[in-house]
This record gives sequence, C-alpha cells and structure tokens, in this order.
Amino acid sequence: MVRQSCLPKSSALVNVPGCKIGAMEDSCTYLLALEGGGTRSQAVVLDIAGHLLGEGSAADVNANFVPFEQAQAAAREAVIAALQAAGVSGRQVVHFALGLVGLRLGAETFGCLLPYAKYHYFTEREVTFARAGVFRPHGVALVAATGASAFGVRSDDGRQAFGGGWGSLLGDEGSAYAIGLQALRGAARAFEGRLEIATEMVAVVCEHFGLHAADFRQQLVQLAYHKPLSRAEVASLAPRVAQLAQQGDPLAMRILDKAAADLSALALFVARQLFTAEEAFAMIVAGGLVNAGELILGNLRRSLAQAFPQARLMIGAEAPALALGRLALFNLSQHT
Amino acid sequence: MVRQSCLPKSSALVNVPGCKIGAMEDSCTYLLALEGGGTRSQAVVLDIAGHLLGEGSAADVNANFVPFEQAQAAAREAVIAALQAAGVSGRQVVHFALGLVGLRLGAETFGCLLPYAKYHYFTEREVTFARAGVFRPHGVALVAATGASAFGVRSDDGRQAFGGGWGSLLGDEGSAYAIGLQALRGAARAFEGRLEIATEMVAVVCEHFGLHAADFRQQLVQLAYHKPLSRAEVASLAPRVAQLAQQGDPLAMRILDKAAADLSALALFVARQLFTAEEAFAMIVAGGLVNAGELILGNLRRSLAQAFPQARLMIGAEAPALALGRLALFNLSQHT
Repeated sequence: MVRQSCLPKSSALVNVPGCKIGAMEDSCTYLLALEGGGTRSQAVVLDIAGHLLGEGSAADVNANFVPFEQAQAAAREAVIAALQAAGVSGRQVVHFALGLVGLRLGAETFGCLLPYAKYHYFTEREVTFARAGVFRPHGVALVAATGASAFGVRSDDGRQAFGGGWGSLLGDEGSAYAIGLQALRGAARAFEGRLEIATEMVAVVCEHFGLHAADFRQQLVQLAYHKPLSRAEVASLAPRVAQLAQQGDPLAMRILDKAAADLSALALFVARQLFTAEEAFAMIVAGGLVNAGELILGNLRRSLAQAFPQARLMIGAEAPALALGRLALFNLSQHT
Repeated sequence: MVRQSCLPKSSALVNVPGCKIGAMEDSCTYLLALEGGGTRSQAVVLDIAGHLLGEGSAADVNANFVPFEQAQAAAREAVIAALQAAGVSGRQVVHFALGLVGLRLGAETFGCLLPYAKYHYFTEREVTFARAGVFRPHGVALVAATGASAFGVRSDDGRQAFGGGWGSLLGDEGSAYAIGLQALRGAARAFEGRLEIATEMVAVVCEHFGLHAADFRQQLVQLAYHKPLSRAEVASLAPRVAQLAQQGDPLAMRILDKAAADLSALALFVARQLFTAEEAFAMIVAGGLVNAGELILGNLRRSLAQAFPQARLMIGAEAPALALGRLALFNLSQHT
C-alpha cells in the first residue's frame, strides 16, 4: 500500500541516497520517529530495515510548559533537521511514529512536510520499554530520571499498574531531583557542622553552582530562593553526587543508597500488583540515573532476585527516538 | 526627661483614660511596641507599669516579600489601630519599641504619628526569649513555626550560636512546613496503597484543602504545582496532622515524632556550642508548634534532661508584640 507514495514525485529526489527507483522500491520507504517531552525533542529517520540514516533535535514540546505554537515549531524543527541529516525528502516518509508527552500533533503540523506519511502514535511508557528492545511489553518499566515513576503491564491479560510520578513536591523519591535536593540539604548541614559524617559536598555544590565557600550560606540561600533553582537545576547535581559516592564520600553514598532503595521499593510495588513471585517478566530501568551504575542498580538487582527470581533486569539505554522508530517498525512487521 | 512631652498639647486629649494631668504624670507615659515579620504585624500600647491598654494588627512588614511602602503602610496601620484601641494619642507615646524582621523603620515613617517617641530597636531573637519572660537571655531559643531555627546566647561572655533557618527547600527540618509536606507525601503514598501503615491522612488532606477523594491524585497534583501551594499553605496542614496524631493515627504520629526529634537535635546542637553539661540555662520554645504539646515538646524535654540536667525548658507563649513591650520596659527600668 505504501509503495506508490514512496515513489519520488520530482526528478530532484531521484538521487537521494539509498533510493533506487524501480529496482528496490522498499529501500526508499522511510520511517520518521519523533519523541519529545519536557526537556527536548528528537527525531530520527530510519530505512525499513531499521538502519539509522539521520537524526535531529530541538527544544522541548511539552504543551504543559511551552505554548502550543512553540511546541509545534520545535517538533517541526527536529523533523526537518533529521530529514536533512539523512538526506531524505519528507515526501519519501511513509510512516511517522510520534511519542510526545502530553501532546498529539498531526497533519495540521506536518501535512506539508510529510504529505504521504501514515501517523502512528505511541505513549512514553511504550517508548521506555522499547529503549531496552522490549517491543511487546510484559513487565515493569522504571523511569529513574529527573522524576521517578514506574509502569507495569501484562501482555497476556492487558492489566496495568502505575506508581510514583507525583512530582518534586509530593513524591519523586529516588529521582535525580531527590538526590540533588538531599545533596543541597546535606551540604547545608555539613556547613553548619551538624553532620555526623564527613563529606566533600560543600565543595562539590560550590563548584557545580559557582558559589564561594567563604560565603556559602548566603549564596546558597540566594540561589535556592531568589533565583530560584529549577527542578532541572537541582537534578543536575545528581551526577556529581554519584561521582562523589563512587569516590567513597560517606554522605554521597548515603544519599545514593537511599535513592536506590526508594527506586527498588517503587519498582517492586508495581511488580507486585501484576506478577506472582514465580512469574517471568522484564524489569526495565531507563533514565539518566542508570549512568550511576550499581550504586543505583545494585539494590534493585538484589531485591528483584529475592522477590521475583524469574524476572530479568534490563537497561533501557537506546536513545528514545531511535527506540520509538524500532518499536514502530516492529509493529509494522507484525501487521503485514 | 519624658514628662514634658507626655503632657497633652490640646484639650481634646485631656480625657484620655488613665491620663490625669498634673496629678499623676507618670500614668500618661505610654510605651508602644511594634512587632512584625513575614506573616503579620502587631502593635500594643502599654502604660509604664506594663498594663496592656490596646492592640492592633495589620499585614506583614517583611521587606523581602512586600515593597517598602507597603510594609511602611502596614506598620503605620498597626500602630494607629493600637493607639485607637487604647484611647491614647501618638503624642503621649514616649517610648517606641520596634522588632521588625528585615526592616528598620524610623522617624521617616512614624515622625508625625509619634512626635515625642524615643526609638528602641530589638531583634527577633530577643523577642523570642521575651515571649517566655526572659529579658536577659542566657540560653537557647528554639523557634518551631512555619520554619525552624535555634539561637543561643551567653549573658556572661556574650557568645552566640545559631542553627537551622535554611528555609523550606534547604532545611526547616522539624518545622510546620516539614510536617505539612510529609503529610502531603504520606497522603500520596497512602492513596497509591504504598504505605505500610494505616492512616486517615487522605481524608484530612481532602478536608483541609477542599479536594474530592474520588479524584485525589489529579486534584492534589493540580493544587501542588499549578496553584501552586505556598509555604504557609503547606504549613497550615500541621495543626491537622497534630490533631490526627493525638487521635493515634500511625502516620501522623510518625511525622510528629520525626519533627520532634529534628527540633531536639537542632536545639541541642546550638546548646552544645555554648554550654557544658553541668551549666544552667533557659531553653525557650516558641512558635505555633508549641500548641502540639508533648508530641513536639516531649522529645526535647527528655533529651534536655539527659544532656543538660540543669537547663530549664520554658514555653514562649506571650504574644510577640506584648513580649517586646515588656522587654523594652524591663530595659528602661534597668537604665534608670
């Protein structure tokens, strides 16, 4: 059904790489995947075999934070950048996979750009599973990023469960935000001389935010309340805390241990809603905190082995847009 | 020195209560005290013997939060209201005690209103001690209000120490804000079914903020981030949590226990900077959390008895403006 529209309509497109008219029509069937949320948007162009041909990124597209027109413009910008990087015309795109948090864009936004594309919508949750190569989810996906949440689904009966995701004030225990906040609070107490354990956290906070240790109290209070520090800025401290923990800093290790325990508790809470101790399922972990390695994953690995010995821990390391593209191709292959 | 200016300049003032011209000149020597911070401002009129003749209140005067002119207007409004309630003319006020957080107002604000007044400035810390009748501080004052901080001073050598007061993001452990926040987080987890202990917190949060339990998650998230909830609104939940704890609610009791332990740790941290275990000093506790009684005070009472057996726990229950007035009169009596 897609081969007609795949054929280039103008001679200018004949020399597009990988597109040999007549001989291998399939090779010019391109798929474009666009993924985006509160931080940034990203698009990739894949050929039908799943090879990455080009990618492009732009600003965030979360309609909760930016005006609709701005989100629309960012989405288009990411798409155009990916097409240019791939050397592919929008007229050659026959499948368009979208995974946008809190936003549904369609032909009103991409009609001129991708005139022959069929739209396929995916959720953030499906993308998280896909980041670990799980295209038919049966298990739990734990998102350990600026926020923290877990989602579970059974492929056999379709049941779903969800936990966390209450945001920085009401929840997000175990998230990068929570780690950054505990680091700031720990630094404050260390500066006062109230902390019973040693730590280099004051120096790390000073370096990360450009504060002077001599005037730490006043500058940190100024930064926290008058600037004020955003959720993302607090979370940006987490990789530094993980680094400090790796070096054996007692406060940093305590903060990471607590986050790891909170994430395990969240993931297992969701798992218990859907699975018995004897069942096999995938436990995917995705998000920036995965980079902290065993400091974050060790607790979950041990807890999972104990509570669900048949479950398999997997890291969702694939870039979201690419994972979305692969997921869309998998679904297309199942339907043909 | 003050008797001349005390004499009413116009016949309209002759009949002011308590002011009998010539016969008892001292009785028309009035003191006005004005206290204020981030929540409200309050003024009282006292006679020279310390009797309360009238009081008035107005909006907050914290120049960090409101424009200077607005703070000035609120301060004047509180003063005028107190004078009217006392039936005293500003011309009869010979001593004016001011205890304003982050603001120093003088003749530019009150010159016309209080033409003969001598200005006496006091700090919030001195007022806190005075709320327990301690006019010559030697000990520790713990403020357990929306925020939490502790201040210590020795009357013999003048040494001072300070702890806490980093604000709601960086600190305020043990404060009403911390209690309210833990209650909101606990309610969120209870709603999810993730709390291992029983609690009525969801119902209490719903009642306090006017939310519907059926749509709790969405409404609480909306309230927390879109409104958004102010520091004072979060803290306003604390008395409800204390009430619930008194009824034996396990979550509420756990939250109160944690706050009580945090406040004890803060107060003892400051005490240890200044006093040895054998020394006698006053440990004043002031602020709204005092109303939670032993739930908050019990831990401190026990910790203090153990670490500083000669120290005396006192509650700062006097209204701040009245305490300030009494403190000013005490100081005047010492200097004559």
